[in-house]
Amino acid sequence: MIILGVDPGSRVTGYGVVRVQGSRLVCLEYGGLGGRTGAGAENFPARLAHIYRRLKAVVEQYSPQVMAVEDVFYSVNPKSVLKLGHARGVILLAAGESRIPLAEYSPLEVKKAVVGYGRASKDQIQMMVGRILGLKEKPTPLDAADALAIALCHAFNGSFRSLESSKFGSAGRGIRSWRQAVQTKG
Amino acid sequence: MIILGVDPGSRVTGYGVVRVQGSRLVCLEYGGLGGRTGAGAENFPARLAHIYRRLKAVVEQYSPQVMAVEDVFYSVNPKSVLKLGHARGVILLAAGESRIPLAEYSPLEVKKAVVGYGRASKDQIQMMVGRILGLKEKPTPLDAADALAIALCHAFNGSFRSLESSKFGSAGRGIRSWRQAVQTKG
Repeated sequence: MIILGVDPGSRVTGYGVVRVQGSRLVCLEYGGLGGRTGAGAENFPARLAHIYRRLKAVVEQYSPQVMAVEDVFYSVNPKSVLKLGHARGVILLAAGESRIPLAEYSPLEVKKAVVGYGRASKDQIQMMVGRILGLKEKPTPLDAADALAIALCHAFNGSFRSLESSKFGSAGRGIRSWRQAVQTKG
Repeated sequence: MIILGVDPGSRVTGYGVVRVQGSRLVCLEYGGLGGRTGAGAENFPARLAHIYRRLKAVVEQYSPQVMAVEDVFYSVNPKSVLKLGHARGVILLAAGESRIPLAEYSPLEVKKAVVGYGRASKDQIQMMVGRILGLKEKPTPLDAADALAIALCHAFNGSFRSLESSKFGSAGRGIRSWRQAVQTKG
């Protein structure tokens, strides 16, 4: 199974492609879309178009079976929520146009799945993602590391479910299961 | 000049195409996209895809010089803001992909432009839009009437600016100018 993880951001949208083969997890590609250039409102549609086109290209290249996206953290600032909604809209569109099923996970679920701790920092996620996927370098930007974490959360969620029949086991047991799942990575 | 007005909605997105030829305003097409069927989250990407495809088709058919979109009213409910953001994202994408300039107007500006009163009701907008454009029937759904109102707001804004060099004149004077602008419509 190939999972496309996406972390929608009002500035940078991260994406990561992970292949799951039995207990083997392989990172196929990751990156950040959007960039920080020309943050003016007049460039916003062009940035949305860039995110959309690149995601469509990734979908065409890897034909993922699922798109895993982070649920929105409802910030106190409605303007941020709105901007995030714009990015998320074109991401969901890319999934909808290619009829790829969508899986949504809260930031808490993602952190628990990858680090085993719901209040994990961005750095911890980045480190664990690199370790689980056996990457030589920490995945950057952080948005891409987050996207890979979301993809891993979906991968673990599937195998975790089959192991314990519940989505929410104790993080400790979960992590042990996942460590077993990725032990081929060292 | 052809103006595509769009009223993004979390349920129904209205659109309206208006041609401006001198003082003549002609409605070319209007409608509502999205519908109320299958409001479940699993259909949301499909609905976004529908909005996007239809808007792209409208853009291809009429080649508008500008897309006029309503600015978001920041509701107290962040979930509504987010849903609206999703719809708005794919709308702005349709503009960005076709490199159509974007013009944004607040609900207040639109109401003042079309009805001359910032607290006008949906029904009043619908009635005035039908009258200004010389339509035989009131435009429905209300979302489409709003979209036509946004397009008219842009049309008036242009001629208004050239008349008074300020975007915000008194509504009274404005309305008189606009009535003059559309007097060919009776």
